[in-house]
Amino acid sequence: MAKEKKDVEQITKREEDFAKWYTDVVRKAELIDYSQVKGCVILRPYAYALWENIQKILDSMFKNTGHENVYMPMFIPESLLQKEKDHVEGFAPEVAWVTHGGSEELTERICVRPTSETLFCDHYKNIITSWRDLPKKYNQWCSVVRWEKATRPFLRHREFLWQEGHTIHSTVKEAREETQQMLAIYAEFAENYLAMPVVKGRKTEKEKFAGAEETYTIECMMHDKKALQSGTSHYFGDGFAKAFDIKFTDKDNTLKNPFQTSWGMSTRIIGGIIMTHGDDSGLKLPPMVAPIQVMVIPVAQHKEGVIDAADALLQRLKKAGIRANIDVSDQSPGWKFAEYEMKGIPLRLEIGPRDIENSQCMSVRRDTLEKQPLSLSDIENTVKDLLDEIQKNMFIEAKQNLDNNTFKAETIEELKEIIGTKGGFVKAMWCGDEECEKRLKEEAGVTSRCIPFDQEEFADKCVCCGKQAKHMVVWAVAY
Amino acid sequence: MAKEKKDVEQITKREEDFAKWYTDVVRKAELIDYSQVKGCVILRPYAYALWENIQKILDSMFKNTGHENVYMPMFIPESLLQKEKDHVEGFAPEVAWVTHGGSEELTERICVRPTSETLFCDHYKNIITSWRDLPKKYNQWCSVVRWEKATRPFLRHREFLWQEGHTIHSTVKEAREETQQMLAIYAEFAENYLAMPVVKGRKTEKEKFAGAEETYTIECMMHDKKALQSGTSHYFGDGFAKAFDIKFTDKDNTLKNPFQTSWGMSTRIIGGIIMTHGDDSGLKLPPMVAPIQVMVIPVAQHKEGVIDAADALLQRLKKAGIRANIDVSDQSPGWKFAEYEMKGIPLRLEIGPRDIENSQCMSVRRDTLEKQPLSLSDIENTVKDLLDEIQKNMFIEAKQNLDNNTFKAETIEELKEIIGTKGGFVKAMWCGDEECEKRLKEEAGVTSRCIPFDQEEFADKCVCCGKQAKHMVVWAVAY
Repeated sequence: MAKEKKDVEQITKREEDFAKWYTDVVRKAELIDYSQVKGCVILRPYAYALWENIQKILDSMFKNTGHENVYMPMFIPESLLQKEKDHVEGFAPEVAWVTHGGSEELTERICVRPTSETLFCDHYKNIITSWRDLPKKYNQWCSVVRWEKATRPFLRHREFLWQEGHTIHSTVKEAREETQQMLAIYAEFAENYLAMPVVKGRKTEKEKFAGAEETYTIECMMHDKKALQSGTSHYFGDGFAKAFDIKFTDKDNTLKNPFQTSWGMSTRIIGGIIMTHGDDSGLKLPPMVAPIQVMVIPVAQHKEGVIDAADALLQRLKKAGIRANIDVSDQSPGWKFAEYEMKGIPLRLEIGPRDIENSQCMSVRRDTLEKQPLSLSDIENTVKDLLDEIQKNMFIEAKQNLDNNTFKAETIEELKEIIGTKGGFVKAMWCGDEECEKRLKEEAGVTSRCIPFDQEEFADKCVCCGKQAKHMVVWAVAY
Repeated sequence: MAKEKKDVEQITKREEDFAKWYTDVVRKAELIDYSQVKGCVILRPYAYALWENIQKILDSMFKNTGHENVYMPMFIPESLLQKEKDHVEGFAPEVAWVTHGGSEELTERICVRPTSETLFCDHYKNIITSWRDLPKKYNQWCSVVRWEKATRPFLRHREFLWQEGHTIHSTVKEAREETQQMLAIYAEFAENYLAMPVVKGRKTEKEKFAGAEETYTIECMMHDKKALQSGTSHYFGDGFAKAFDIKFTDKDNTLKNPFQTSWGMSTRIIGGIIMTHGDDSGLKLPPMVAPIQVMVIPVAQHKEGVIDAADALLQRLKKAGIRANIDVSDQSPGWKFAEYEMKGIPLRLEIGPRDIENSQCMSVRRDTLEKQPLSLSDIENTVKDLLDEIQKNMFIEAKQNLDNNTFKAETIEELKEIIGTKGGFVKAMWCGDEECEKRLKEEAGVTSRCIPFDQEEFADKCVCCGKQAKHMVVWAVAY
């Protein structure tokens, strides 16, 4: 039992030090290992399996809406990166530069993609000539590199995995609809699969993507009440098309610039899952994406028939399409319980001699740690229902956290008071002036998360300067 | 009909210029586009969909044999790359070096992974302490970079996609079995899914992987009779473990070095599919991996009911799990026929007013271009059977090419004569001396492809020096 105790004790409590709790969970649940290059981490099998489940779901949502996958090279020549002025300004300071191939110095240095707008534009220029070639709705799964100073597992890597969608359309209307559609897909994915409630909205000018006309975002609240930007969708207008000289002959036989979008979600969302749902026993994974949904643990497994019964249970679950696993190692049941709680497996089924006698097993839900005996007679459906219930309950709990910690402020003092004492999201009216955003950042440490689609007009003056307000903005301290 | 003619005419004939035929097909079938960085290509939707099918099948074969996916960073510090002497000698001349992050010069330059043995070893050192931690059977899907001078689509990219398996075991026996198992999986995959017959064998010392004790390979014969190394599996012994100081406490309580393997298959295999099966009308894809297995083409589609009937046919096929698509664009049927022959879609189903009357459609097999009316009554099963037949026939044709162009030589003159006039694979006895390999390379332009598992002893003297022979080797001109 030595190891069991150790595992449970070594994790910092959330209320004590949330940042330390986070890194404890990341390591103890065997999600990552550090490499020798700062900010470049190893996604271990458990984290990668989670990412694969995320990929599978998102990928099918993308394909169902007519998107195709491609693969662009990872290298961007400096001259290509520089073609769109705002874009290069945003990204050049944080790219990794390749200067040598083997022993030879390159004539032009190339960067490792921080994002691939420039590559897609260069390709679109080659393949688009007519309205018949439009739209192109492409996506790619790849890794990108941003040479950040401060790094944190999942939240800020120098190299991270993501998907980036890049689409190009003949009309503004179609491109705008695409931008909104993809934001809606991210919101649906976060809420229905990750049990993470979102606030949907538009970024302010200051916070939008480098080169975009408009950036849309889903913002989630973590357990410590900070905000995590969890997915973004950008509308580019024809800015990139003009910078890259992409043109098409329209049906009316005139030459036009097409309109573009891009949208992305990354492994950062795994950090979001951890910080939304985790507790002092470790990770808590939503059943829809958990690599293992049910862990079967034989109790008193040395006794005759126990392992066979546990294995029969496992096989029934697997056959029913449930992602189940078993641990028949010689570790104690107590060690196993702590281990799989740490790993956030949604449901544990214990089965021992007495359970076998009674044709039952003992279930323990990870979300509530509630114990309940389950009859083996219709175990497949019972387990499926339980997993559904866990999924729903995890969303409800996260939603309560969001709702209970979303406040309104009419003055800067009120806003500072809320952020200083309670934290959370603060809704406040804003005049639209970037100076007010800067002041709120300086004085309260908050940034504008978004101008929510669901606008409320509870005041008419800017929370900061008192001038006529234009929008309601959600402000928060963010990751 | 202008475009139709153009598409068919512009492709070079195989017998005229195989290399040009190859690049024609690659471009015309819309598999790739070139980027601004030499040797870095864009995998367009059709090529990427093919790669996704390859991935799906291989990935499930890996998982069924107990492997787990991970993701390692793309960056290797120079000092880490240098830890295993043979390995760094093999790879350092062709890596891309990152020297700057943003505007700052790095204190140590880092390379973009050309392969990830060093990263896996560094990670294994962190996570392995006891026999309980072994084996680790990991795989990753990623891109790697090798700064080659001469590049060709799919066959030799500076950046290419692949999977690399890396496993670590407590015993030699287990590691050796793993090496063989993975080679067998590659062979099964190539033959049963890609319809590419293979020669399985061991690489000579000269040709083995940098740092490996033994390298195993599957070699395929292309239509021009050259060889393509299509998948390799390496046994490392404990060389890397010693270089990286990886140790574990065994059951007998002593500290030991574990034993390792690695194995990989890349997008190069797409080049192999093209060059094995393609013909003067374009690509020819094996049904098992074809992104689109059946293309439905309405004929006289302006006539009432034609598009509806074609669409009904499409829906029936899709419902039966067949990857089917339809082209209702305003291009002529002739253009469409040429287009989908170019793209190598295994089966075309044409349906027009007369077919509808007769409750049938016209099928055209891509492998033989044979036309045959098919009754609509049980079309799902008819099509499935036809796809099976096409798959089998493509293997048989490729096998005939391999068999008909595999020769034996007992003297260097004979070998040169065969290579000079017919080309193909030449089986010849070899003394085991690297000097003879070099001489055959210089005089006949061939390299040792492998020492096949299926050894024949048709002579006892080395084909080159006349000394006592040790092995039968397959020699060929290779890509």
